[in-house]
Amino acid sequence: MTHQDKAAVVLVSGGLDSATVLAIAKSEGYNCYALSFDYGQRHRFELEAASRVCDAIGVVQHVTTPLDLRAFGGSALTADIDVPKDRPDDEMETGIPITYVPARTTIFLSVALGWAEVLGAFDLFIGVNAVDYSGYPDCRPEFIAQFETLANLATQAGVEGTGRFRIHTPLIDLTKADIIRRGLSLGVDYGFTLSCYDPNEHGQPCRRCDSCQLRSKGFAEAGMPDPHTDHAPP
Amino acid sequence: MTHQDKAAVVLVSGGLDSATVLAIAKSEGYNCYALSFDYGQRHRFELEAASRVCDAIGVVQHVTTPLDLRAFGGSALTADIDVPKDRPDDEMETGIPITYVPARTTIFLSVALGWAEVLGAFDLFIGVNAVDYSGYPDCRPEFIAQFETLANLATQAGVEGTGRFRIHTPLIDLTKADIIRRGLSLGVDYGFTLSCYDPNEHGQPCRRCDSCQLRSKGFAEAGMPDPHTDHAPP
Repeated sequence: MTHQDKAAVVLVSGGLDSATVLAIAKSEGYNCYALSFDYGQRHRFELEAASRVCDAIGVVQHVTTPLDLRAFGGSALTADIDVPKDRPDDEMETGIPITYVPARTTIFLSVALGWAEVLGAFDLFIGVNAVDYSGYPDCRPEFIAQFETLANLATQAGVEGTGRFRIHTPLIDLTKADIIRRGLSLGVDYGFTLSCYDPNEHGQPCRRCDSCQLRSKGFAEAGMPDPHTDHAPP
Repeated sequence: MTHQDKAAVVLVSGGLDSATVLAIAKSEGYNCYALSFDYGQRHRFELEAASRVCDAIGVVQHVTTPLDLRAFGGSALTADIDVPKDRPDDEMETGIPITYVPARTTIFLSVALGWAEVLGAFDLFIGVNAVDYSGYPDCRPEFIAQFETLANLATQAGVEGTGRFRIHTPLIDLTKADIIRRGLSLGVDYGFTLSCYDPNEHGQPCRRCDSCQLRSKGFAEAGMPDPHTDHAPP
């Protein structure tokens, strides 16, 4: 197997899930090209976390692409809309939250596909999860399967049959606790990650948004301390 | 029919094809939101042409999104690779040219989809064409059909069934001459458009790249003068 046969593009946001995905891709022998987006998210701490994660786990290259989704708005993450706090579990499990960014996963996977084609890589990794956060339509297995089909129609490599693109979603069926256990077994230091949608001006998590709550519940269920919370109490 | 029922996102590059598409969308009664990309293409004249076209035909809003595809390279349009010149017709009709930008149409449609969802629009227009330039995999009808399916899986609007996304490709079966005739019948001033992959420092077309050759052939077959060539001879 040549070098390029084992190259993969991994979407890395700086959060817990994508850090775990990167560690899984590495553990499967892939040379990882990490892709992050500066998409006008509420804060830049996420991008700093992505860089820390890539440095810690090890990648061939890390590219951060500017992409101004704020020009369109429509989400609490890309417009001046408050991030919901302290939502009870049953509310989090119902409907599509305001933190949904329209077509974000489609956009991110498309850019990753373009980079993969340039690299001669056919493997894309993304940390979508359909268990502990099923509210996003573009995190469902049927969406991912459809994107994989599209990738093989959309590209020169797909059309010429030099390979077949695969979208790897190793977290899709895992609970947050499972994800954390898997990452810890691979040596991921979650102290480098940031999950919060709305950290304070020092980059410390609010512990009240949906993402912080899910993270906290995940560590509790895994029976492990959250190093981030330990090291950087809000 | 409400205002939003007739809103559409139209991809506008500044070339002949997308100007025609914009005019078609307008003629069908859509309120048009034009989307262009500053993707690290070889020259900025294309973006100036996009603005001229939007002003001339009339849009509700024109957004130009920066998206640095040069970070990945892999195409004569986004890397330091020479644009091929004076290619004979039979060569142009074979294989995928070096001007192919990996996954470009997928990326552009994804961003357009995101904007459409924010606007509450379900109609996307794109000037892909499978007749006079069939070398790009992401200009084929089967790719477009697949993207339409994806759009309805990827989005809140698609999942909740508040509407069905449609990707309109009014040029897909037309020859370049047909496109020009259609645009002229709708009053498009092609003097505002720029088709060249490699214009000189004054923004004048080279008349030798594939795109210039196809344009020239199209005007000749339509039996019309090219106002751009008339007004700005190279």
